[in-house]
Order: sequence, then structure tokens, then C-alpha cells
Amino acid sequence: MRSLEVDLGPRSYPIWIGEGLIAQAGECLRERLMSPKIMIVTNPVVAGHYLGALRQSLEGAGFVVSQVVLPDGEAYKTLETWQLIFDGLLADKHGRDTTVVALGGGVIGDMAGFAAACYQRGVDFVQVPTTLLSQVDSSVGGKTGVNHPAGKNMIGAFYQPKAVLIDVTVLNTLPVREFSAGLAEVIKYGLIGDAAFLAWLEEHIDRLMARESAVLIEAVTRSCENKARIVGLDEREQGIRATLNLGHTFGHAIEASQGYGQWLHGEAVAAGMVMAAKLSVQLGWLAGQELPRLVRLLKAAGLPIAPPAGMAAAEFLKYMAVDKKVQQGRIRLILLKGIGEAVVTDAVTAEQIQTFLEA
Amino acid sequence: MRSLEVDLGPRSYPIWIGEGLIAQAGECLRERLMSPKIMIVTNPVVAGHYLGALRQSLEGAGFVVSQVVLPDGEAYKTLETWQLIFDGLLADKHGRDTTVVALGGGVIGDMAGFAAACYQRGVDFVQVPTTLLSQVDSSVGGKTGVNHPAGKNMIGAFYQPKAVLIDVTVLNTLPVREFSAGLAEVIKYGLIGDAAFLAWLEEHIDRLMARESAVLIEAVTRSCENKARIVGLDEREQGIRATLNLGHTFGHAIEASQGYGQWLHGEAVAAGMVMAAKLSVQLGWLAGQELPRLVRLLKAAGLPIAPPAGMAAAEFLKYMAVDKKVQQGRIRLILLKGIGEAVVTDAVTAEQIQTFLEA
Repeated sequence: MRSLEVDLGPRSYPIWIGEGLIAQAGECLRERLMSPKIMIVTNPVVAGHYLGALRQSLEGAGFVVSQVVLPDGEAYKTLETWQLIFDGLLADKHGRDTTVVALGGGVIGDMAGFAAACYQRGVDFVQVPTTLLSQVDSSVGGKTGVNHPAGKNMIGAFYQPKAVLIDVTVLNTLPVREFSAGLAEVIKYGLIGDAAFLAWLEEHIDRLMARESAVLIEAVTRSCENKARIVGLDEREQGIRATLNLGHTFGHAIEASQGYGQWLHGEAVAAGMVMAAKLSVQLGWLAGQELPRLVRLLKAAGLPIAPPAGMAAAEFLKYMAVDKKVQQGRIRLILLKGIGEAVVTDAVTAEQIQTFLEA
Repeated sequence: MRSLEVDLGPRSYPIWIGEGLIAQAGECLRERLMSPKIMIVTNPVVAGHYLGALRQSLEGAGFVVSQVVLPDGEAYKTLETWQLIFDGLLADKHGRDTTVVALGGGVIGDMAGFAAACYQRGVDFVQVPTTLLSQVDSSVGGKTGVNHPAGKNMIGAFYQPKAVLIDVTVLNTLPVREFSAGLAEVIKYGLIGDAAFLAWLEEHIDRLMARESAVLIEAVTRSCENKARIVGLDEREQGIRATLNLGHTFGHAIEASQGYGQWLHGEAVAAGMVMAAKLSVQLGWLAGQELPRLVRLLKAAGLPIAPPAGMAAAEFLKYMAVDKKVQQGRIRLILLKGIGEAVVTDAVTAEQIQTFLEA
């Protein structure tokens, strides 16, 4: 088992990464948590694979365990679905000393974490992410929330877990499209701040696609280290943390315009990263030969390298205008000054963006 | 204008108390806030009296102002009503740099504050409390939230405002029953930690009931000072802050059993404080002669001194069992060891409480 610490002062917590960890969850958490009770939040697909093993391990360690099974998918990441967690917590009389455990992907993690943040004004929270995307992205950083019809993640909280338990064994049951979507975020860490990791990924992409355990553990660990480093520097997203949104401003527009759940988040981010890289090349910030390198890696990872055919500039601008990255009416973008060197900028004018999108 | 600082380190904020402050809100806030936009959250009753004046003052100081008018009353303190605030914020394209201003009583303050805590994971928040209760209680301390059918304030956040602006002039339009309900919390501050203030209240209760401005300002200021002192010692309610819940465990049971909105919060707290005092006398913790003194003061303030006739012990226990004051299955109570000396205790057994409630 690999272990790394996310350093956030009094809110620091460990990430455990290894094979077969779900079966050891009870022991791991018994030492970490004071709570007598646990509420597992999951969805029917994940429950079919892993709920039994997790419950057994937690009950074996003496926890009293409840569960809420939410409908599966980004389309259900709403305030309405979120309320079901409170209904379950109150029906089973969970007190302020309970712990909410998210067993699932990013949608489950975001909703369960936001519920933990708000139940009786805050109870303990643990993540057991079961997709590659959630293992390398949403399980680190404390962002929780739900979507609003007018925008993604518009309602939420910054709320840190007490621990994150990453069992790479679960990736064996992940559909190939979702696995690839997770790789988009893995590649992102190389692009924004770790050129050596990007080179490592280019070398190991075939073994990664074959889901070799040792390579998975290395890729997940280095991704989490990269994210933990950046979040540790900027927990509340005042500055450098925004670079984690490379590809996300364009990506969110793609997801929103297609209807959430049509394009996977990672797929939209992959296309968004290519767009950000292209704009960076146009501005003369990124060397032209880096672009085919990025495109090659994304293709090998089974990812799209362009937005949906026929998605108009106006459609992008419509959704970018209410994106959280808007500050005082200017669009902030994350662009590249090189591989491993992302920057937050509002130097690009609205006209330049429009011209770029139309081309 | 009186001013006091709530000392919470980086989350410290000022409370301004005086006459006619709503008309000066724009100037006061211009120096305090960076945001270009403001969203006022209020209800139709308060809007009829003060929304125009507040808007005028804020717009005069250069803010772009939106408004959401929520239905009035505790019955609407729900997740469903709360969502209307997000609908308004997104419809008017408020960004992460907006400020939510609560203009109203505790229900408005709790819902607007909770929306500010969650909108784009947290935007600035200002309170303009318009009831005596919210001026002395919910505007200090950062508790925000909504009710769930299974319990009061079960969903919420700790979230501090950037400033609180208390205009005692607004109390002139407050219905007498609501004014009295506010006095229950004022009296509570004397009971739990400020015997001198309780004596001052006994002397000034008639002038207070006549709503003399100078006496109101003094009572509100000393109440806020008391609350600010306690919250400053214990922001997250780990210890001493729980004494602020004197009368609330019994009071919440009364409110919940009668249906929210039938008994006002302060009325339920008044009856709950008498119950807590009686139990304290029975335990030999409080001198018997203090009880008629408390009853006399509450009566002079126009408050009930007993729970609803016919409310059974079982009814109390049903609602107390999911109260947030339950820790590890034991009921924590706030009781009195003297006037001005409240304690948090789990020394009273469930049987003792049942016997007390049945008597």
C-alpha cells in the first residue's frame, strides 16, 4: 500500500493507494475515525460490484453501517437526488458524530461530500473512489457539489475528507470509455506542471491501457501527488489551483451544450485541452511541435481530440459566460507556456476568443 | 452608531448597531466589500417596508442590485425554497465575486447565508436582520441552514458574514408577538452568562416593551457582545457554545411537535428555559427562589412560561432523540448552576428526563 499525505494544516488527510484495499477498509478507518456509525453513499452499478465487500469490512471493524443507493449518472447530480442522502441519514437517526463514505465515481463523491459538509452543518467524510477519474481528480482537493440546470457545480462547498482509500483493483470492472476519460486528467497533470510525468506517460501508455496494476498504482500516485501539491499551495482556489482547470472552460461548455452525461467529463476535458493548446500555439506561447505530441498521447489513450462536429462559437460563448472562471466580466483562461507549464491568464480578449472559436 | 467586532481571526467581522442604518447601508458596505454586484434576499412583508430604502442606498453607492423575494415564514425554510435563491443568482448572472445580503428575520438570514455558503462554493454574505430575534441571535455566530421534515436546521453550514448591519428603527414595525419572542433570547444571554445583564433587564423590561430606542440599542448591543464572546471562544460548537442552546432542546421539541411556525422559536425557547430551570432546581443545581424571578421576567416580556397544554412526555422524547445535541446516544442538556451560569451536561439519565417530563 502506498500512502501520501495531503498537507492542509488541521485539515490534512492521507490517501492510501493499493490493490484490494476495499476489503481492508474497516481496519484502515477504525484508527482514523471516532464515529460509531457510517453511511455509505453509492449507486446501483458500483453497489453490485463492491458494496457487499465494503459493508463486510466496515462491520467487521465494529461500525454500524447504513446505505443510500442513488441513481447512476451525471444527470442525477442534482439538488433533488442530493436530498435523498439526508432522508437516509435522518431515517436511520445518524447524529453529528457519523461518517459519510462515498463509494463510487465523481458524481457520488461530489454529492456525498456536499451532503457531509451540510448534514448538521458538517460530519466526517471518507472517499472510496471507484473510477480512474475520481481517483486522480475529485478525491483530492475538497471540491464538492451538484449541478444546476444553468451550470455545472454551481452549488457546493469546499470540504476535505478525513481519508481517501484508492483500490486500483476496481479499475478492472471500469468500462473502457470511462477508463480513457480518467486518463485525460492523468495526462493533464503532466501538461500543467510535470513534464517528466508526461514523458513517463508517453512511454507507458500501452501498459496503462492494458491496466497493469503496478503501472496503474504509479500513475494514480503521481497524479495525486501533483494535485495534492497544487491544492496544498492554494486550497480555496485563489491562484495556482486554477491551473487544474486546463481544458475545463472549453470542456464545461461542451458538456453543457451536449447535455450532461452525453460526453464524459474527461472526454470533454481532452478536447478542451487540445483547444487550449491550439490557442496557446496561436498566441506564440507554446512551440508548434508540442501539439501533435499531445494529440498522439490523447489518441493512444482513446480520447477525442476535438469538440463535437458542428458546435458553434456562439454555443461555446453562451456556456463560458457563466462559468466560475469568469472574474469581473473577463474570461479567465488556463493556457500553456510549455509542456509542464500552465498559466492562468485574462490577457486574451473576448474578440480573440471568438475569432479562435469560429476558426 | 455602536460598533463591535466579532473576533474570529481571518473571519472576523463588524456588527454595526444604530438608528436609521438601512439608509446608510451603501456607504457602510462600499468600504467593506469588493463585489460589484449584490443579491438581496428578503420576503414580501419586509420588502414592503424596507426593500426600497435598502436598494436605493446600495445603488447610490454604485452596487448593481438584484433581488429574490421568498415566501414568508418558518414553513418555507426548506431546500425547495432555498433553491429559488440560486435560480435568481444564475438568472442574473452573478459570479463568484457577488455578495448575498439577507434582509429579514432568522429564516431569511439562515437561508440566504446557507445559499451564500454554497453558491459557487462560497460568496460574500451580509446580514441586515429585521427582527429582534435575528438581531440578537442568528446574525451572530455563522449558523446557517434549512429545516428537514424530520428535524429543524438539519441541513446547513457554519458560514460567517462580512458584516452585520442592525437598524433598531425596524423594530417599530415588528408585531408584538415577534418582539416578545426576540426578548426570550435577550433574557437567555443574562441567564447563561451575564447575571448583571439579567438584573438590568429586570429593571428595564417596561421601557424595553415600550421599544425606547436607547434601551433597545443597549439590549441589542449587550446581547450581541455576549453571543460574540461565546462564539469567539468556540466557533464550531465543540464546547461552551452549546450553552447558547439553553431552552432549545425542549424548545425544538415544542416547535416540531406543534408544526413549525405555530409556536414562534422564541416562545418555544422561553417555555424551554423554564423547563430547564425547573429541572435544574430539581437536581439541586439552582436555588429555588430563582425560578419565580425568571417566570416574572418572561411574563413581563409577554412570553409563555410552560409548554403547550397536553404535550406528552413521549412527544418530547420523540423529537429530542434526533436533536443535534445527541452525542453517542446520550442526551446532552444545557442546565443552570445559577443565574448567569449555564453548563452543558450529560449527567441526567434518560429515565430522569422521562420522569421529569411526565411530572
